[in-house]
Amino acid sequence: MNFASDNTAPMHPRVLAALERANAGAAMPYGNDPLALGVERKIADLFGRDCAVFLVSTGTAANALALAACCPPWGSVYCHPEAHVDDDECGAPEFYTGGAKLVGVEGAHGRIAAADLDAALAGAGKGVVHHVQPAVVSLTNASEAGTVYTPAHTGALAEVAKRHGVRLHVDGARFANALGTLGCTPAAATWQAGVDILSFGGTKNGCMAVEAIVVFDKALAETLAFRRKRAGHLFSKMRFLAAQMDAYLEGGLWLDLARHANDAARRLAEGLGRLKGAALVHPVEANEVFIDLPEAAIAATEKAGYRSYRWLGPGTQRLRLVCAWSTRMEDVDGFVQTAAAALA
Amino acid sequence: MNFASDNTAPMHPRVLAALERANAGAAMPYGNDPLALGVERKIADLFGRDCAVFLVSTGTAANALALAACCPPWGSVYCHPEAHVDDDECGAPEFYTGGAKLVGVEGAHGRIAAADLDAALAGAGKGVVHHVQPAVVSLTNASEAGTVYTPAHTGALAEVAKRHGVRLHVDGARFANALGTLGCTPAAATWQAGVDILSFGGTKNGCMAVEAIVVFDKALAETLAFRRKRAGHLFSKMRFLAAQMDAYLEGGLWLDLARHANDAARRLAEGLGRLKGAALVHPVEANEVFIDLPEAAIAATEKAGYRSYRWLGPGTQRLRLVCAWSTRMEDVDGFVQTAAAALA
Amino acid sequence: MNFASDNTAPMHPRVLAALERANAGAAMPYGNDPLALGVERKIADLFGRDCAVFLVSTGTAANALALAACCPPWGSVYCHPEAHVDDDECGAPEFYTGGAKLVGVEGAHGRIAAADLDAALAGAGKGVVHHVQPAVVSLTNASEAGTVYTPAHTGALAEVAKRHGVRLHVDGARFANALGTLGCTPAAATWQAGVDILSFGGTKNGCMAVEAIVVFDKALAETLAFRRKRAGHLFSKMRFLAAQMDAYLEGGLWLDLARHANDAARRLAEGLGRLKGAALVHPVEANEVFIDLPEAAIAATEKAGYRSYRWLGPGTQRLRLVCAWSTRMEDVDGFVQTAAAALA
Amino acid sequence: MNFASDNTAPMHPRVLAALERANAGAAMPYGNDPLALGVERKIADLFGRDCAVFLVSTGTAANALALAACCPPWGSVYCHPEAHVDDDECGAPEFYTGGAKLVGVEGAHGRIAAADLDAALAGAGKGVVHHVQPAVVSLTNASEAGTVYTPAHTGALAEVAKRHGVRLHVDGARFANALGTLGCTPAAATWQAGVDILSFGGTKNGCMAVEAIVVFDKALAETLAFRRKRAGHLFSKMRFLAAQMDAYLEGGLWLDLARHANDAARRLAEGLGRLKGAALVHPVEANEVFIDLPEAAIAATEKAGYRSYRWLGPGTQRLRLVCAWSTRMEDVDGFVQTAAAALA
Repeated sequence: MNFASDNTAPMHPRVLAALERANAGAAMPYGNDPLALGVERKIADLFGRDCAVFLVSTGTAANALALAACCPPWGSVYCHPEAHVDDDECGAPEFYTGGAKLVGVEGAHGRIAAADLDAALAGAGKGVVHHVQPAVVSLTNASEAGTVYTPAHTGALAEVAKRHGVRLHVDGARFANALGTLGCTPAAATWQAGVDILSFGGTKNGCMAVEAIVVFDKALAETLAFRRKRAGHLFSKMRFLAAQMDAYLEGGLWLDLARHANDAARRLAEGLGRLKGAALVHPVEANEVFIDLPEAAIAATEKAGYRSYRWLGPGTQRLRLVCAWSTRMEDVDGFVQTAAAALA
Repeated sequence: MNFASDNTAPMHPRVLAALERANAGAAMPYGNDPLALGVERKIADLFGRDCAVFLVSTGTAANALALAACCPPWGSVYCHPEAHVDDDECGAPEFYTGGAKLVGVEGAHGRIAAADLDAALAGAGKGVVHHVQPAVVSLTNASEAGTVYTPAHTGALAEVAKRHGVRLHVDGARFANALGTLGCTPAAATWQAGVDILSFGGTKNGCMAVEAIVVFDKALAETLAFRRKRAGHLFSKMRFLAAQMDAYLEGGLWLDLARHANDAARRLAEGLGRLKGAALVHPVEANEVFIDLPEAAIAATEKAGYRSYRWLGPGTQRLRLVCAWSTRMEDVDGFVQTAAAALA
Repeated sequence: MNFASDNTAPMHPRVLAALERANAGAAMPYGNDPLALGVERKIADLFGRDCAVFLVSTGTAANALALAACCPPWGSVYCHPEAHVDDDECGAPEFYTGGAKLVGVEGAHGRIAAADLDAALAGAGKGVVHHVQPAVVSLTNASEAGTVYTPAHTGALAEVAKRHGVRLHVDGARFANALGTLGCTPAAATWQAGVDILSFGGTKNGCMAVEAIVVFDKALAETLAFRRKRAGHLFSKMRFLAAQMDAYLEGGLWLDLARHANDAARRLAEGLGRLKGAALVHPVEANEVFIDLPEAAIAATEKAGYRSYRWLGPGTQRLRLVCAWSTRMEDVDGFVQTAAAALA
Repeated sequence: MNFASDNTAPMHPRVLAALERANAGAAMPYGNDPLALGVERKIADLFGRDCAVFLVSTGTAANALALAACCPPWGSVYCHPEAHVDDDECGAPEFYTGGAKLVGVEGAHGRIAAADLDAALAGAGKGVVHHVQPAVVSLTNASEAGTVYTPAHTGALAEVAKRHGVRLHVDGARFANALGTLGCTPAAATWQAGVDILSFGGTKNGCMAVEAIVVFDKALAETLAFRRKRAGHLFSKMRFLAAQMDAYLEGGLWLDLARHANDAARRLAEGLGRLKGAALVHPVEANEVFIDLPEAAIAATEKAGYRSYRWLGPGTQRLRLVCAWSTRMEDVDGFVQTAAAALA
């Protein structure tokens, strides 16, 4: 009954089983074990091309390392003002880059429009020594508003980025949820659309703690091994990161879990959307629902033990509800019915 | 048959079981779950005093965060030249502190003598704007040479540190091994001897990936929550770090495992030490053996499938042999017999 | 005939003469000469209270050092989006702080309103580990729009800052111009209104290259000597920074020069403001004029050899015109007449 | 009568006159004035090849920027343990590089031997993720011991550096003194011997505050404009840095001044070296004398008003005596006679 965050979910049993299997006997440390080496190939196969892969244990680490690989200390990162990298990582990108600046580009429903990005980059003073230098655009897919970027949208942004000589990063903490909706290949949503580097999330979607930095432009990979080690993100017992990712990808588990979470969110949105006084804030395209609800409805669900997030602060009536791989449909229905009953 | 590093060992079954138990249902993220909160109390109980605790997943992160809490960007860290923080972390302390300098203080068998520390600090130019400012001393206990600091030794160094106005940090990646030998309380080896902050290791001794930064002088704790988050070391599913540490401490498992590793190392040292041409490099006080051996002996063990580390580079005859909680005594005996047979 | 910037002006002859006088014989380096020590007292006298003073050679250095003294790496700096520290210093505050974030607070005519600051700080997530922590507010007085903050306005902002536990910095690259207009004491405009630390500019107003960081809350001064040295901003021949500042303050030269520049700007604004099609963008309260003018008028002045700055880019019709201590009134009148003639 | 440091000397009159000339009228800021542009060509002519030039006001800034251009945050700088960059800049290289490590290579008389450098680099763990990565060697010429590197010596070190894939930087705070002794061309002592980047000092040898970063491998220049601005070292009134350097180079003034200082040091060394109980510590090849003297001799000179530097601390009998362009030969003779009289 917890809709507060997908971070509250446990590991999927198959991920846990993989940890157990990986625990047999000795293994060479620091990624030199067969499991770690195998996962790199598995990810390359998934994306249908050669790429460099760096496993880490948190999304903040994945994003900050990926951005640091793209952006010098005097550079700037263009992102939506609600981007996790700007808002929720306590300045991790600034720390890892050595002091870069994050520049917000507004856009409806958590997405940046290509024309707005173009205008922002055009006005940035490229080459002028008084200004930080645009270095990378960071998209979140699925976005913090629960929407997704289509390959066409990503491609349009990539075209702008390339034209201005900057890189394109995707924060894919919920990349599985995006793909679950888009239905395209991982390749189509990333490098074929012009993405240079991806934070590919596992933690929110059934893993314990694992994210992969997937580097499509291998020129960006050169510094990452040193950056990761220096940040304390190279696990000695790397096999336990690898095991999670391996199980996550095996047999398409990652997509199955994401689709379940997306389905739950859509069902929740449909149910709540029909209530009197309810208003969806953003289209529900992944596993998050942002909705304005009457206080009576909210209060009733809270009293019944459902956890959610009053998005604009205590006492306000906008909820964020997040569904996870482990969300039960009866809890979705229970939430809707509890809210409906309160308004009846 | 792997003596290359204690990093090659798997998790202890009780740690794995704890992960499994922790995986039941939803839990609040970022350390707000009961398991995480409970572990902080458990560590405080273990050390017999109020302290602040920050769990992270690697020793490099624990050390770098702890040192950054003690040392400004223009500060310096005094440590043995072989210290892991200086030699094996790709500059992590420099990264986390924002550019501090590590200053080596030589000493026999991986330990710093109080008089040498005193002399180094006295000559450091405290208060002179042209020089980096001494801020913290970092000891490794058990040391990189497999020796330990007694409480008296630690206390003597603490006295010097206090007199010069600098902090005392202990890198305790193998703190369990040190205590297994010392037989004193955790308190006696740390805060009662004047230690301000400790990196308390679990990873090398039966855990998957968990270390606790234990802050005895709580004034040093103020910045750590932000530093940890900003570095990407705050796990969202913190329960899985907490579960490891909880099982590690429960029933004294940590000490039992360390004592086994220490026993294995001592047995290995005794067996090898009797061989003709063998010479121990350092006293064996924890779970590491540094020994010069005839090439025939080394070659024979390698050929038989034992893994060890030629400490001075390929082709040299000094071995580092590390025993872990999982080292089997028959492998210890097998190693000795193989070496002995080669020299017969 | 150069209205492009006050940076284009030469030294005032009395400043040059001071350099010449300071050049006699040997002097102890690094600020231990009588001139350097004397200037610190002179500034304390000027501000009517004990304060710590650090001379540097550029405004960027003064601002970045001052902000770094107030703001940890995980902190944030609140400023107007047009603030020099955010827009024109290539990320110097980010570099010096070790990666802090600059947060823009919009406001008319280059000034922040107290209520807007209050709202921004209230929503910043103070104490929440996911967000950078508000640490300092930076005002520019005179502002980048050529307006000034009155002591009452500064005081209102200081009240908000104090209430939220953050520091108040003033970028006073044009502090002399502000005071020339305000007519109050330096004390009234700064520490009596709640300012903690001031970048007190000399370079734009008759000096060669000197700015003083004036620290009213001496707790903030502790780290600055090390920060300045470490940044390469401690001059060995400090007497030549001190000599400039000494001559600048002597006999109120700084205020005389600023008043001349302000008078010139006001005269320019009045003359141009009367032209058909002209529209002042901001009130002219210091030495800068922002004005929309017909293209014919602009083109005529450019053709006649007057230098100005098309503020919104090439081909646009908004000018920034800056007057300096050395601006000649006949050039002011000439500019106006040239523009007027073009529109006749 | 000041032998404490060459930093105590005033500007040469021709440098002061150049400041005066540069002060006429308005000039474009930030290095876009004719004087600044002309100096870059003048330095290129002096070195007989195309190079990029960045003027700054302190030696610490020149060194730290130059090293940062060569060395990533996870890199290491190899230098003599007495190097100014390691010992006397309060960690400026660490600050500017974002946390690199300085590694000392011992050597007699302040100089590094090629074989020792080779051994140090060979043992550095190039390519191994646990270790910081060797990036640059920094020589000081003339060295902190008052000795010089010949072109052959520099070339031998460059050969080692190139072989290990690292850069070669020269800290030339006293480059003029080195050349005054070597008698070779600036080219022979630098790029023809394999130097990639040079800090070319003016401040200690007759200027007020100016150093040029001279970049022979222009690939290293790319980031420097941004790094300089971001560090607050881009002067708005750049003409006043350029004027100093212009006068310094004009007519070979820089070499004339350095030769005078070198002559004075040699004369001082010869005079003192003949005294009973005196022992030169290093060969005197530039403008510094390191000498052990009887206490009676030292005390007599101090009583007579001569300033020098007790190199090993108060109460010790090793002096550093530095001669400058402005040192008078009668003061040299007076020092020697005073010391001699005390021992008679």
